[in-house]
Amino acid sequence: MTRMLTGERPTGPLHIGHLFGTVANRVRLQRSGVETMLVLADYQVITDREVTGDVAGNVREIVLDYLAAGIDPDTATIFTHSAVPALHQLMLPFLSLVSVAELERNPTVKQELADSGRSMSGLLLTYPVHQAADILFCHADVVPVGRDQLPHLELTRTIARRFTQRYGPCFTEPEPVLSEAPVVLGTDGRKMSKSNGNGIALRASADETVRAIRSAKTDSDRVITYDPSSRPEVANLLLLASLCTGAAPETIADEIGSGGAGRLKAVVADALVEHLAPLRARRALFAAEPGLVADILAQGNARANELADATLRDVRELMGMTYC
Amino acid sequence: MTRMLTGERPTGPLHIGHLFGTVANRVRLQRSGVETMLVLADYQVITDREVTGDVAGNVREIVLDYLAAGIDPDTATIFTHSAVPALHQLMLPFLSLVSVAELERNPTVKQELADSGRSMSGLLLTYPVHQAADILFCHADVVPVGRDQLPHLELTRTIARRFTQRYGPCFTEPEPVLSEAPVVLGTDGRKMSKSNGNGIALRASADETVRAIRSAKTDSDRVITYDPSSRPEVANLLLLASLCTGAAPETIADEIGSGGAGRLKAVVADALVEHLAPLRARRALFAAEPGLVADILAQGNARANELADATLRDVRELMGMTYC
Repeated sequence: MTRMLTGERPTGPLHIGHLFGTVANRVRLQRSGVETMLVLADYQVITDREVTGDVAGNVREIVLDYLAAGIDPDTATIFTHSAVPALHQLMLPFLSLVSVAELERNPTVKQELADSGRSMSGLLLTYPVHQAADILFCHADVVPVGRDQLPHLELTRTIARRFTQRYGPCFTEPEPVLSEAPVVLGTDGRKMSKSNGNGIALRASADETVRAIRSAKTDSDRVITYDPSSRPEVANLLLLASLCTGAAPETIADEIGSGGAGRLKAVVADALVEHLAPLRARRALFAAEPGLVADILAQGNARANELADATLRDVRELMGMTYC
Repeated sequence: MTRMLTGERPTGPLHIGHLFGTVANRVRLQRSGVETMLVLADYQVITDREVTGDVAGNVREIVLDYLAAGIDPDTATIFTHSAVPALHQLMLPFLSLVSVAELERNPTVKQELADSGRSMSGLLLTYPVHQAADILFCHADVVPVGRDQLPHLELTRTIARRFTQRYGPCFTEPEPVLSEAPVVLGTDGRKMSKSNGNGIALRASADETVRAIRSAKTDSDRVITYDPSSRPEVANLLLLASLCTGAAPETIADEIGSGGAGRLKAVVADALVEHLAPLRARRALFAAEPGLVADILAQGNARANELADATLRDVRELMGMTYC
């Protein structure tokens, strides 16, 4: 059975960018029979900031977002880093297998360093090694990634290969699954992200969604056309409607014609609200179940610990560290 | 009760440089009522080399060396890194508290990098953070160190302070206990070390000890004087005899007078063999007890895990990472 490992940093609830960009894809993979491991990377929250914030609240919201989007908790393993000690132990041998120069060359880390406006912390430099531990502890075969995560996956593959050369076979090199989903921008035309405050949360109400779309940036040309390079904000709204309805963005643009930004926004808001209604109804049901999220995490953490402990036993043996 | 944390990398059995330099001091501290934690830093073996070697054999020999030197296993906690997962988990928050620039400035790491003749690995750069986890996981009050370890202890103190500022009180800043023991050189006049092959193992026989002293480098001046700066090799042998007998090195030199290197070596060999005889007898007894070392490690690892798990619970709570 193929196993995938993916997840996110619990810095806030998921938004529709996550849904269309990655989460829907994970649900498809899970439904196609891929065993699903989802890590909530709580320690990685502090790679680019000083405080963990409401990490417990964010973990809860993301688990509910997963369930709302269709992740089946009965077959998925949803766990948090902080509850799986043996996973972190892999950092030690793995750190010995990479040079600081290799870590410093990572383009995604460089970008994150620039974005953070802080000095490079030990954790920012080494978190790709931690990510290798995430992927290799559970022997994941596939890792759904965006382009920015490819350097990390390449490092994971390097670590798996070097470990094998040095100590013997234990890890296989995981394959990336590049998402084909188009990138959804935020309501201000920048990348949709929690920290930019330009997202529409999966958990938002219909009213909040309509208001967010109404406030979205557009342009002054009343004739609506799908032209991502010269009209990125309008194209992004058309893309959203397209992702919800299945119609091509050009077709939607033709239907709106000279209706202007107002008509465009009404069409997009309707499509989004309708598309998200069943997710949000499901979410409300799950959220009302007392103890549900805690149970899912307890079960996921137990399963992750089982896998991590087994991997660590193998690693210890291969490294000759069995004493008692 | 005051608690000390110290230990070593299991790269080979202990030699008499360890005994006079650090181990005798630990025994004194333990006998004075200081709770003793001794870590065998098996993952740190690979900070400066590619392979773990006979790490299991080395761990066994060092435990026997400890017992031979007088460490009381009933009150000391002797454990190996690889058996204490929760300790390593502290690496994650701790790495976030230090900058890569701070890690790169560490003079001891720089020296070790130069000595290793390799490129800087992720582990070599970050092992002082791992050492902070060693010291802080068990809330050690004191850490017996050599001068080269002072930068590491300063980093540990920095991490404890920053963690407190950011998340609240959990760790106290440990105090260094600088060893006052003089440094014993190897038989070739260089630093005594396993890798230089110039040491006299604690476990060596009387014959091996005599042979090693006979092969020691000296000079051609027949009149023996204690002059560490201009006659380092002769002074080192006099120091060894002094450490064994308690007599001042100058007094021993006077007694030898113009007896030359031959007489000097005979005096030193006699003193060493006599001083080490009870240690070696004790060692042989312990080595003959089947299962003794495994039992000591099992007990030590269990105790270390208990402490690490408790600390991790506190850390998780302070960081807001309690979900289930």
